Amino acid sequence: MKVALKEAQKAFDEGEVPVGAVVVSAGKILAKAHNQCEILNDATAHAELQALTAASYELQSKFLEDCDLYVTLEPCNMCAGALYWSRVRNLYISAPDPKRGYSLLGKNILHPKTNVFTGLLRNESEALLKDFFNNLRIQ
Amino acid sequence: MKVALKEAQKAFDEGEVPVGAVVVSAGKILAKAHNQCEILNDATAHAELQALTAASYELQSKFLEDCDLYVTLEPCNMCAGALYWSRVRNLYISAPDPKRGYSLLGKNILHPKTNVFTGLLRNESEALLKDFFNNLRIQ
Repeated sequence: MKVALKEAQKAFDEGEVPVGAVVVSAGKILAKAHNQCEILNDATAHAELQALTAASYELQSKFLEDCDLYVTLEPCNMCAGALYWSRVRNLYISAPDPKRGYSLLGKNILHPKTNVFTGLLRNESEALLKDFFNNLRIQ
Repeated sequence: MKVALKEAQKAFDEGEVPVGAVVVSAGKILAKAHNQCEILNDATAHAELQALTAASYELQSKFLEDCDLYVTLEPCNMCAGALYWSRVRNLYISAPDPKRGYSLLGKNILHPKTNVFTGLLRNESEALLKDFFNNLRIQ
């Protein structure tokens, strides 16, 4: 999650909503990404989607059943749907997203075999997000 | 929707689940795409996601508020989430997806300003999907 946080910091520095994601398999980082919606002019360029696509490319496999995703903010509905299709094994979420998190839908959106763990480095992820949105309000 | 169906046929011919999507703005086709999960080894390479990303690139805008998406199969949860972020104006769905369609989760997944229309060329879209899955069973 520390690497994911570094990715989130990169997003912050680029004026993007600071979210980072990392895909790990067998103790090795396969892919890391941060939110790039602004720079790419693409509302779907979330950290998770990009990390999943990069990891699939790396493995040449559309399924990521032996992979874990670390993400600094709870995935949105779109990214949870992507996680469903990718069949990621373990999902580590740092900070919850009470506005847009997939868990608000209250249904089993993730793949039934995906395990979810929350709270790793939560304070750090939340502090970065708060800084970002506070800065937006000041501008 | 005829152009979207042609895209779906391309997917069929390439051994992909036959779904096609087209983004239209001001009477002009901005982007068209078909499902490419197999060839790209990417479980997220659905027709809709690719069409939305291509249209955003074409317009250099992450929001597609003046655009309409035509798709031959009801979007999944991931693609509905992408439609939410993209703020597409009108969503035209040909065939319903009773197994993986976003509407199974309730309707509030799309952006509140997105209008939904269903049933255009439904028989043709369904016939193509049935052919595809029947062929899979025979193999």
